[in-house]
Amino acid sequence: MSDRSVNEEWVKERIRSGRQLFSNAVSEPDGEYQTDQQLRKPQPPLAKAPMTDRAISLPVDFGELPIKNDFLSIINQRKSHRIYTDQALSLRELSYLLWCTQGVKSVRGKAYATLRTVPGGGARHPFECYMAIRNVEGLDKGLYHYLPMTHQIEYLGAPDDLEELIGKTLQGQRWAEKASVVFYYSCVFYRAEWRYGIWAHPTVLIDSGHITENLYLAATSIGLGGCAVAAVDGPEANRAFGVDGKEESIFYSMPVGTVDPKDMEAEDAFYAFVRQEGL
Amino acid sequence: MSDRSVNEEWVKERIRSGRQLFSNAVSEPDGEYQTDQQLRKPQPPLAKAPMTDRAISLPVDFGELPIKNDFLSIINQRKSHRIYTDQALSLRELSYLLWCTQGVKSVRGKAYATLRTVPGGGARHPFECYMAIRNVEGLDKGLYHYLPMTHQIEYLGAPDDLEELIGKTLQGQRWAEKASVVFYYSCVFYRAEWRYGIWAHPTVLIDSGHITENLYLAATSIGLGGCAVAAVDGPEANRAFGVDGKEESIFYSMPVGTVDPKDMEAEDAFYAFVRQEGL
Repeated sequence: MSDRSVNEEWVKERIRSGRQLFSNAVSEPDGEYQTDQQLRKPQPPLAKAPMTDRAISLPVDFGELPIKNDFLSIINQRKSHRIYTDQALSLRELSYLLWCTQGVKSVRGKAYATLRTVPGGGARHPFECYMAIRNVEGLDKGLYHYLPMTHQIEYLGAPDDLEELIGKTLQGQRWAEKASVVFYYSCVFYRAEWRYGIWAHPTVLIDSGHITENLYLAATSIGLGGCAVAAVDGPEANRAFGVDGKEESIFYSMPVGTVDPKDMEAEDAFYAFVRQEGL
Repeated sequence: MSDRSVNEEWVKERIRSGRQLFSNAVSEPDGEYQTDQQLRKPQPPLAKAPMTDRAISLPVDFGELPIKNDFLSIINQRKSHRIYTDQALSLRELSYLLWCTQGVKSVRGKAYATLRTVPGGGARHPFECYMAIRNVEGLDKGLYHYLPMTHQIEYLGAPDDLEELIGKTLQGQRWAEKASVVFYYSCVFYRAEWRYGIWAHPTVLIDSGHITENLYLAATSIGLGGCAVAAVDGPEANRAFGVDGKEESIFYSMPVGTVDPKDMEAEDAFYAFVRQEGL
């Protein structure tokens, strides 16, 4: 049997280095360190090339959607939803969620930066969006990848058991298996490192929160619900979508589905421990 | 003279450990490591206690504000603004921005969690919001702290030169010195570590992006502009607001001010290098 006692020094060091991330912006470089942008090295592509030749165009006539247009109500009504009904999302709803979270509004310069519907440090936008789609009208159940430059999605294939894959990639959070779509976000590291070098990583994590906040709000604005999940099993998710896990890695996700106010009681069961433990 | 050559191994290690943050969720604990919540240790307070007895209540009748209520337009129109006019913000506008970014909608359990206008992992909300206020109607120029439990702000005092302080805390980004208000966000580490222990820190960074995205959108919805800044000089900012830098540290900020469409040309000057370098 292995020693299961906890090395307190190891824990302290983990906490110390975790806290250190929050002072990353002022950490000193080594010698005359310069980022690759400063060294005038060639810039990486603004988005990942299509992985297949199976691109599907998405509807962009969002005027057809019944968008709730009371901004403050959207902010106030946004909440976590982990219980979903069996109703499908329309392709237009999916398109709207993708547009609001990663849509490319324009390109700066010849190919210097994408200006998107979310802000990002230095407009680097190092993220790729993958989807496990269970229940969207007109789409085969399976795995997909968003192509932001053309606002399309591409079909990557279907695993034997999509629900099992969703549960596994989210460390056993099986409620997510009933979502209509699970959005998975990867980081293509060099896209941010090219400009920010050794300082890139904490900022990229902050920027990823911009995406999911827009996803929460956009979902709320059309009566859908979701719950962001940081407890992603990266290796499992990378394997599922054919991501290498070295230059690019999946690290964040958000299941989204159709919701019913009647399910709020079941939703509250996720917090039963608060009452049980008298917290 | 010191050796200014760059240690390539040190750079590689920094990049490697930066990328490692994105697999944090699956990193193994040491032995039978448990978080303090699992060990049933007492929970830290949900918000920092008032630092003074100078609390100022904020107006909450947001119906008085001319909020643009076209959600998709707000998403599409959000952009970075670094050029501000001299017009003051109203106290109601400041109140609205604070509400949309850190407002407490309710408390779960006796004192288990705050449910806020932004989502956050495990509803920990380990952030505090400080402000350098230059130009808000009815408020003295100076430094302030938001009290989320009562939706108040408290006056911390005035430095000799507020504009100089803003520039210094943002590593010399002097455009921010013309903002009406600069929001600074700290993390009170143990508030998240209590629940998430050694896994807390990358998730907290992601959660901080939820706040600034709401700040961008809320500002856009009432015709204001801002630009998030991750390049905060933590030690400078901590010193300014009396934050200890150990248990709590300022790491992120966003200047916000009044904007004029006529200034877009000046705004574009921030990107002149793209054309100059033919990128």
